[in-house]
Amino acid sequence: MKTYIECYPCFLKQALSATRRAGGTEEQQLSVLRKTMEILIKLDTGTIPPEIARLVHHAVRKEISSLDPYREAKQMSTGQALALLPDLRRLIDNSPDPMDTAIRLAIAGNIMDLGVMEDFGNLHDTIDRVLEQPFAIDHTTELKRLMETADHLLYLADNTGETVFDRALIERINIPVIYGVKGSPVLNDATEQDAIEAGLQEITTILPNGSDAPGTLLELCSAEFRETFRKAPVVIAKGQGNYESLSDADRKVFCLLQVKCPVIGEDIGAPTGSIICRRSQPC
Amino acid sequence: MKTYIECYPCFLKQALSATRRAGGTEEQQLSVLRKTMEILIKLDTGTIPPEIARLVHHAVRKEISSLDPYREAKQMSTGQALALLPDLRRLIDNSPDPMDTAIRLAIAGNIMDLGVMEDFGNLHDTIDRVLEQPFAIDHTTELKRLMETADHLLYLADNTGETVFDRALIERINIPVIYGVKGSPVLNDATEQDAIEAGLQEITTILPNGSDAPGTLLELCSAEFRETFRKAPVVIAKGQGNYESLSDADRKVFCLLQVKCPVIGEDIGAPTGSIICRRSQPC
Repeated sequence: MKTYIECYPCFLKQALSATRRAGGTEEQQLSVLRKTMEILIKLDTGTIPPEIARLVHHAVRKEISSLDPYREAKQMSTGQALALLPDLRRLIDNSPDPMDTAIRLAIAGNIMDLGVMEDFGNLHDTIDRVLEQPFAIDHTTELKRLMETADHLLYLADNTGETVFDRALIERINIPVIYGVKGSPVLNDATEQDAIEAGLQEITTILPNGSDAPGTLLELCSAEFRETFRKAPVVIAKGQGNYESLSDADRKVFCLLQVKCPVIGEDIGAPTGSIICRRSQPC
Repeated sequence: MKTYIECYPCFLKQALSATRRAGGTEEQQLSVLRKTMEILIKLDTGTIPPEIARLVHHAVRKEISSLDPYREAKQMSTGQALALLPDLRRLIDNSPDPMDTAIRLAIAGNIMDLGVMEDFGNLHDTIDRVLEQPFAIDHTTELKRLMETADHLLYLADNTGETVFDRALIERINIPVIYGVKGSPVLNDATEQDAIEAGLQEITTILPNGSDAPGTLLELCSAEFRETFRKAPVVIAKGQGNYESLSDADRKVFCLLQVKCPVIGEDIGAPTGSIICRRSQPC
């Protein structure tokens, strides 16, 4: 997905939010804002949002000398989601269509995003909504078929905490799953450590992608990750950052997300608040 | 009022909104965003919001080669408000406290601000709300006394359309009124032409301030305006831009406004949506 002009003010807000979350002083907040504007002024046309967000969060981490400003928030998110795991499993087990419910819950978990909002509100309300809500784009039938017939699956994580919702879905998948996570911290995106804290190593092979972009920029990923991506018969890609990176990828990529910003909504063709299971469509 | 860090993303949004309103192409929008960021990067500490907004709207007008991008929107606002004038007069005439109602209506008109939002919603709803709502800061008793005892009054306009609500208040004031307007167009702020279209020349002496800042930056105003400001025994200053410029001025300045942004709300000590009649307080 291209970078829309509306994204510019939003990058400033995100830079500010990340610096504050890490306890940055007013001087540091201002310095990060200036660096973010320098990045935005020099932008090449065709730069996509996760490439910009990667540079912005680099600047934040450098300014506040923290490798992982979201560490504490991420641990809280994982704890909060783990407390819900028994409920998630019960909802799936008691559902007339367990796989549909599991996919919906994985999408519900996508609300645990600290890039768009300062907090993600009440998880129970989100779960209730997403379990009832019609899909705005629904390629779940094809995804479900592939999840039964393929010999394995690559599942690209998004936010920490959401990982636990992913776990509840992956527990229902009968083929081997490789769980792709960020190579190093950016925003509240899940790294290997975050995925382990959510228990994903028990049911998947966790594979760090070698990159710190909030999305999946294949050209910045490790050779091993790129090869895994190339060979995977099905890819599930969670969240807005992965949609921004992979919306034009080949047809095996299924983006599961909640639309949380009007710009992505316009690009995808569905309003804010929508739930999406969309097979990528090459340009 | 100082510029808060939260104002930075907002200046980008305002630059974008103004460029679009004037029919600027995507390329022009991007160019204005870049220029706005160049302004923000170079900012001296202590620069207040109307100084920045002045430079931003300079950049917009230059990029799109338009002296008054809000011309059409302003004419519509004036027409819309003039259609309400008989109702405003009736509300004042039938009120048990006509001056209180007239002050409230002048504050209700402050909603006609195109700097904060893309449109200002339903005017009737705003009028109903502001007529009932308690003041968050209420120095009206002192203002009313001065409006009866002073030998004249300087009234600083804000938005076009709001001018008509000012007119309804000024019709109840029994001392001579000088109506200060912008020297040349910026945002949808009222200029002499806009004030004349709202009929203010019938009941006031209209005085352009010689500046195009969206507020009242005395150092940029004409010598005549500065002298008028200095000599005025009472000054009414409408809206957020004038609050940002004159909140620390001497005690004769009464800011009448609706709080339309959380940053001003924090500075003034009242939440968004509040109505304010506040005597300025020198630092």
